[in-house]
Amino acid sequence: MENHSTRQGDNINFKNFYTTDILVIGGVAAGPKAAARARRLAPEREITIVDKCDEVSYAGCGLPFLVSGDVSRRLDLMTTYSGEIRDPAYFEKVKGIRVLTRVEARSINRKPKEVQLVDIQSGRSFSMRYRQLVLATGSRPVFPDLEGVKLENIYCLHRPGDAAAIREAIASGEIKRAVVVGAGPVGLEAVDALVRNGIKTTVVEILPAPAPKLLDPELGGLLRKHLEEQGVALEMEDRVMRFEGNGQGRVHRVITGKKTLEADLVVMGLGVRPEVDIAVRAGLALGPTGAIRVNDRLQTSDPDIYAGGDCVEVNHLLTGKPVYAPLGSTANKHGRVIGDNITGRDSRFPGVLGTYIVRTLETTIARTGLTEQEAMEAGHSVVTALVAALDRPHYMPGNRPLVMKLVASREGRLLGIQIVGRGEVAKRMDVAAAAISTGATLERVSNMDLAYAPPFATDMDALIQGVNVLRNKIDETASTVAAPEIRSWLDEGKDFTILDVRTEQEYDTLWLDFDNVVNIPLDQLRNRLNELPRDREIVTLCALGPRSYEGARLLQHHGFGRVKFLEGGMVAWPYELW
Amino acid sequence: MENHSTRQGDNINFKNFYTTDILVIGGVAAGPKAAARARRLAPEREITIVDKCDEVSYAGCGLPFLVSGDVSRRLDLMTTYSGEIRDPAYFEKVKGIRVLTRVEARSINRKPKEVQLVDIQSGRSFSMRYRQLVLATGSRPVFPDLEGVKLENIYCLHRPGDAAAIREAIASGEIKRAVVVGAGPVGLEAVDALVRNGIKTTVVEILPAPAPKLLDPELGGLLRKHLEEQGVALEMEDRVMRFEGNGQGRVHRVITGKKTLEADLVVMGLGVRPEVDIAVRAGLALGPTGAIRVNDRLQTSDPDIYAGGDCVEVNHLLTGKPVYAPLGSTANKHGRVIGDNITGRDSRFPGVLGTYIVRTLETTIARTGLTEQEAMEAGHSVVTALVAALDRPHYMPGNRPLVMKLVASREGRLLGIQIVGRGEVAKRMDVAAAAISTGATLERVSNMDLAYAPPFATDMDALIQGVNVLRNKIDETASTVAAPEIRSWLDEGKDFTILDVRTEQEYDTLWLDFDNVVNIPLDQLRNRLNELPRDREIVTLCALGPRSYEGARLLQHHGFGRVKFLEGGMVAWPYELW
Repeated sequence: MENHSTRQGDNINFKNFYTTDILVIGGVAAGPKAAARARRLAPEREITIVDKCDEVSYAGCGLPFLVSGDVSRRLDLMTTYSGEIRDPAYFEKVKGIRVLTRVEARSINRKPKEVQLVDIQSGRSFSMRYRQLVLATGSRPVFPDLEGVKLENIYCLHRPGDAAAIREAIASGEIKRAVVVGAGPVGLEAVDALVRNGIKTTVVEILPAPAPKLLDPELGGLLRKHLEEQGVALEMEDRVMRFEGNGQGRVHRVITGKKTLEADLVVMGLGVRPEVDIAVRAGLALGPTGAIRVNDRLQTSDPDIYAGGDCVEVNHLLTGKPVYAPLGSTANKHGRVIGDNITGRDSRFPGVLGTYIVRTLETTIARTGLTEQEAMEAGHSVVTALVAALDRPHYMPGNRPLVMKLVASREGRLLGIQIVGRGEVAKRMDVAAAAISTGATLERVSNMDLAYAPPFATDMDALIQGVNVLRNKIDETASTVAAPEIRSWLDEGKDFTILDVRTEQEYDTLWLDFDNVVNIPLDQLRNRLNELPRDREIVTLCALGPRSYEGARLLQHHGFGRVKFLEGGMVAWPYELW
Repeated sequence: MENHSTRQGDNINFKNFYTTDILVIGGVAAGPKAAARARRLAPEREITIVDKCDEVSYAGCGLPFLVSGDVSRRLDLMTTYSGEIRDPAYFEKVKGIRVLTRVEARSINRKPKEVQLVDIQSGRSFSMRYRQLVLATGSRPVFPDLEGVKLENIYCLHRPGDAAAIREAIASGEIKRAVVVGAGPVGLEAVDALVRNGIKTTVVEILPAPAPKLLDPELGGLLRKHLEEQGVALEMEDRVMRFEGNGQGRVHRVITGKKTLEADLVVMGLGVRPEVDIAVRAGLALGPTGAIRVNDRLQTSDPDIYAGGDCVEVNHLLTGKPVYAPLGSTANKHGRVIGDNITGRDSRFPGVLGTYIVRTLETTIARTGLTEQEAMEAGHSVVTALVAALDRPHYMPGNRPLVMKLVASREGRLLGIQIVGRGEVAKRMDVAAAAISTGATLERVSNMDLAYAPPFATDMDALIQGVNVLRNKIDETASTVAAPEIRSWLDEGKDFTILDVRTEQEYDTLWLDFDNVVNIPLDQLRNRLNELPRDREIVTLCALGPRSYEGARLLQHHGFGRVKFLEGGMVAWPYELW
């Protein structure tokens, strides 16, 4: 566009037809990043971003933290590190990029390479010809059309306005009880934000445990326990049927399949779907996930149209199959790759591992790579280990446990890891992601020269401990059993002994209250072997795992034939204690 | 040994000759770990550990934290997670391993496979025949024989008794001033411990900057600045000549080459040397570092004698050359590998990357892989980048900057990284260690699917930002200059302009006070290009780096021929500001 002055609302002199070298539809993450990268590489190109909303280039992932109060002002999510607001004027002055807000792209005419646009405020239509087009249309929240869903105080948490409205509602002091619909990442961050504001919160989830797409059931159960301990009510295997108002247009009750929950506020945390309407209308190919299909240069089925961020599907590095995994980190990587390619470089986005991390109250959950189920579906001969370990040495103040589920192929390659815990989760997750994406063997991970000093890690880092348990299982040095199996043995009334090898003091503080539990501390075990049945299956148990492993080996060495240890010990036990 | 009862001091019935299957000399880290692993794999073997000290299996790396007060009781460093003391009785009862304390191994007679031992308390000698021998003799602190070095209150920080004595001295209330000799990892942890106790501390280092073996000079200079800001006095390029007492046998003054420092307490933090006497006397081969040479199965030159931990040298994964890199994490990995191999498995220790991490006051320093100097010496064509980045988004409370120096080969492989900062350093360090040890390319690291949510990382993680700067430099998208070069230009009086593109507010708060500095905020730069000289070299500057990169690109696009940006910006500037 010729006129490079800043567009301030309606002071633009409309024509019906414009041209630009690079047109970007969508101004939040992938779009501005692609534009900025292209600008740095190609100073001569005209670059235009259009977005139907008022605000662009905001930190969408920061919205829950605006609700929680971690972030104090809405504006903080719109500014740069140095406090400048990333508005159209900023893009014009700093980047030389034209940003048109409240301009909606209605359709793409690929033959003359033109996009039809509407200025929302004035209703005027115009079109813009491009040499290269970038679709960064993002996603939209899932918002089911239930009875009463239009009542006030029912929100999603997708745009700055949503977070600001929730925050305002909370500030009114009238929100005592809230319901969060969906216990995925968005729902869990909403739970965190609401509970931190002192609001009694119930989360409703259709599946049996929270974070069902991220965590296998054992860890989902553990997360459930964590959330309950922190005062969150969980309504699992249930679904919202309708909402009821208070007679003044505000939500007052959530009617689920099983219950009636009182609620002054509802957050829909059901995730997002790719915003693909314009791509579909332009005849661009979608992939099997319903998102826009792109190649590793992030070109759509039209080589002059690139797409990135939440509107596209991506390659899973381990399965080679497309997945829909919208995330701000991926969107920014996409932006860089697109910026390279539209300015004549050759840049590739290899794919993702489906890495997620969520902080919810004191607990962090995360996963990367494949879950056990996914690994089996991908045809692997799978070995797993559930391992509890401390993030720092037990003698350092502030140390906290982590519970990890590691998934590997029997040939000894790490395929995935899930972690739940109050300790330092992110580091182990990132090391695992790095290891998996480079195809590292378990042996290599086990010997990685990770940074060790007591404020940061144990001498054998938690991740290395976890990998060593996997190696012991593959080598058949360790025979283990996982909590779900024990739970079903207990339910079936199976005849077996649980041997708790913790100290008497530990046992007296917290114990599994079943008839078949005996407590013989590990340091007495050698002298009390005669108290144990030789004809029954024995499962040893301790707090984290190492002592029960030691105890199991001791029994095996003394001729007990059917001994296993409970993976992850008491810390990873996801069920009630009795 | 036949008698498997616990040895309690002198109630053992001495014979002159014993046998054991596996004899381990050294009971702190690698030794007990090897013994415990061997026990789990081979229940039938007799395993004996001898150690000349009273205490075994203590957390040696935790000693500075006993001094600092992080760890409240000496006993906490001797106990397991569940509070059991790891004494000989514990090893006997829990592990079925015989531990003889205060027994010194004097010599090895390799032909009949016998070790000559002395019970220190009684002075009685005896010998023990082994099938396999494990040397885990550890290290001893460097303690130079200076005049006055035997005065009271001059300590190293190597054994529990050292830490307890320092702590007792501090508790007396008489320690106002301390000197730490040596600014390596041990010295820096000692500084941390002393300053946290309110003691005015000076560190004396022979080289020009702290942590000289871990950090290149720019980051060493930055660490120096950090330490000074936190009240530590640094006496660099100086050495201790002698100590003077207070007339009552206590240290009172430290006389260096340049100064006289008053000190009520001195900690020698000069690092450690491998304890190899018995190996040398037995004719076992040492390597070029002076530590015991072992192969990747951790066998010494005698295949029935294994060695691990602080007494051996290890292979550097990037150079293939032996290095001496004693660390508790490596010692524990060694223990596992030795335990495997002495029980008939085939287990390998591939080597290290020289990873270190040290927390000193609010600052963490760490490095893995090769420094710039080391990479050049190893024959690489080296590219480096100095990058400042936040550990979390700027809108999240508690975010802190990191300064990274990344070292890569021009072919695009990451070779090393050093980090200094108040932010979360350990995670980026471990990801880098994982990436380097798997030979990851910069492109792969740049696209790694690291865990992203605002409490944990920025959307482009700090490490990925760093790697992208490297890629930009290799692609010649970015032209940079590092602080040491600017410093020397300033010293030489070179004719160039420093263009500070930060906001006026930022500039007014903190600025480089040189004649040739101009401040034009980035958002005014396009309109104020005529204020800049076209005939002089221009170096752009901002807080962290991205804006100065943007500013440099802008000037280049407008025909300014000689523009570079200052790597790492103000945050990484290691010198005075004027």
